[in-house]
Amino acid sequence: MQLSDYMRQALTLAKEAAAAGEVPVGALIVSSGEVIAAARNRVEELQDPLAHAEMLAIRAAKAALGSRYLTDCTLVVTLEPCPMCAGAIMLARVGRLVFGCPDGRLGACGSAFNVPAYRDALYKPEVIGGVCEDECRALLKEFFRARRDNGQ
Amino acid sequence: MQLSDYMRQALTLAKEAAAAGEVPVGALIVSSGEVIAAARNRVEELQDPLAHAEMLAIRAAKAALGSRYLTDCTLVVTLEPCPMCAGAIMLARVGRLVFGCPDGRLGACGSAFNVPAYRDALYKPEVIGGVCEDECRALLKEFFRARRDNGQ
Repeated sequence: MQLSDYMRQALTLAKEAAAAGEVPVGALIVSSGEVIAAARNRVEELQDPLAHAEMLAIRAAKAALGSRYLTDCTLVVTLEPCPMCAGAIMLARVGRLVFGCPDGRLGACGSAFNVPAYRDALYKPEVIGGVCEDECRALLKEFFRARRDNGQ
Repeated sequence: MQLSDYMRQALTLAKEAAAAGEVPVGALIVSSGEVIAAARNRVEELQDPLAHAEMLAIRAAKAALGSRYLTDCTLVVTLEPCPMCAGAIMLARVGRLVFGCPDGRLGACGSAFNVPAYRDALYKPEVIGGVCEDECRALLKEFFRARRDNGQ
């Protein structure tokens, strides 16, 4: 499977989030070519502003592997992670981060901040941005446009 | 109670962490003058690198209040929060952050990054650093000195 194939799976999760009234972000974690965890944003459902797709996917992957760290894993997410999620990716020692579209406002992997590149970090994941960028951006734009049209 | 009184309670939690072999960080959350949540670092105990004192305290405070946001709360923590915790503090809309000693290496509230001050943030907590700074720093220094002496 190519990175774009995994990103399309993450996009399917993001679309499920949108259908449930959540900001459409989907994430999955791959180990040895296999998807071991998949999650979507559940902030509204759980009434928990920390329930981002990446946090839920990291927790599920740790449970699936029974390990403290995710060194040999790739996290694939449709949107550039925020500071909380970028920090969690570093702490969990995710080996590789692949994201779809950048988040110019709050993205913490090169846009507003660059947490993974911080020079004093003990651990630095490989970061690949812009995979299926246009599809990921279009989904977010459509969600926020529809929400504005509904006066929300 | 003064902020230094709350910080001394957080220091007691940090000492409990040190006694359990954890990096000594303690946190509590205050609402209307009352401590509604208290937690210490549990990374080793839970084998979970995301189990920082602040994250556990935020989760406990949300459960105690039954609310999505912690707008009227103060989070008191012995060490400057890392990017993950600073991001979570913003997302949970914690009204005020009070920390003890700065973390020059990974602190995300003014040292390595300044997540709460980010210009495009929708929400900005009040931030007060340096409360009982010397005691908070001494506890961390002593912990890491002892760990080095034990060859860990």
